[in-house]
Amino acid sequence: MKKIYFCGSIRGGRDDVELYRKIISLIKSYGHLVLTEHIASPDVFGIEKEKSDHDIWVQDMTWLSQADLVIAECSTPSLGVGYELAEAKHLNKSTIVFARKEERAHSLSAMIAGDPYYTVYTYTSENDILEKIKDLCEEYR
Amino acid sequence: MKKIYFCGSIRGGRDDVELYRKIISLIKSYGHLVLTEHIASPDVFGIEKEKSDHDIWVQDMTWLSQADLVIAECSTPSLGVGYELAEAKHLNKSTIVFARKEERAHSLSAMIAGDPYYTVYTYTSENDILEKIKDLCEEYR
Repeated sequence: MKKIYFCGSIRGGRDDVELYRKIISLIKSYGHLVLTEHIASPDVFGIEKEKSDHDIWVQDMTWLSQADLVIAECSTPSLGVGYELAEAKHLNKSTIVFARKEERAHSLSAMIAGDPYYTVYTYTSENDILEKIKDLCEEYR
Repeated sequence: MKKIYFCGSIRGGRDDVELYRKIISLIKSYGHLVLTEHIASPDVFGIEKEKSDHDIWVQDMTWLSQADLVIAECSTPSLGVGYELAEAKHLNKSTIVFARKEERAHSLSAMIAGDPYYTVYTYTSENDILEKIKDLCEEYR
């Protein structure tokens, strides 16, 4: 059982929340603990409302420091995910980045794609990313 | 004359490019150097296309390390800006964050708003942010 810090967009936009839910559910099915499970909640804004931004930051930084592995789904641009990826590097965490291959805008930031620290996977279909997540779950079991 | 690293969204979305142009132009009018002036270019994707993502990252990290002050306009969510803000903190750079106060989504990430390192200004109008930028330019002259 590994502790996984999953990064996805909250305030940046919720277009991919259903994908986040599938990823988190898959990771959990392998017995791993997802520290940031609330990212897939349809009520994430309600959950966040009960805390100050500072308390959210303290909680997330604590979880990040405890994580065995960081997995980020970066297709919806998010300030918080970019910040978490840089912090994950400074904490020397194994960090896997997923980005949907898109014809139009929102291709992965050069700051992430160009930083050799990260392992980046671009994927074309939901099946594609879920298969890769399965492989990771096996590998880190 | 100070060296300013201005952060704004590129691949995350270009809705605020006209605002970026006004901010950069204002900063330059005070005699400061804006290292990341290309962020306001209508041809920023053409400029980026001539470089690899790794070369862009090396250039931006070099500029960031040389900056006297980091100013970020965060209203359009951007993975790169979030990453740059975390890196600016680890480089111990004075860092000022601007975010438009919005009724709907895209309020500032808790990872930025909740991290006590940053000086955050929420603003309501273009005039509001430009006045604050003027004050900063005077202060850092």
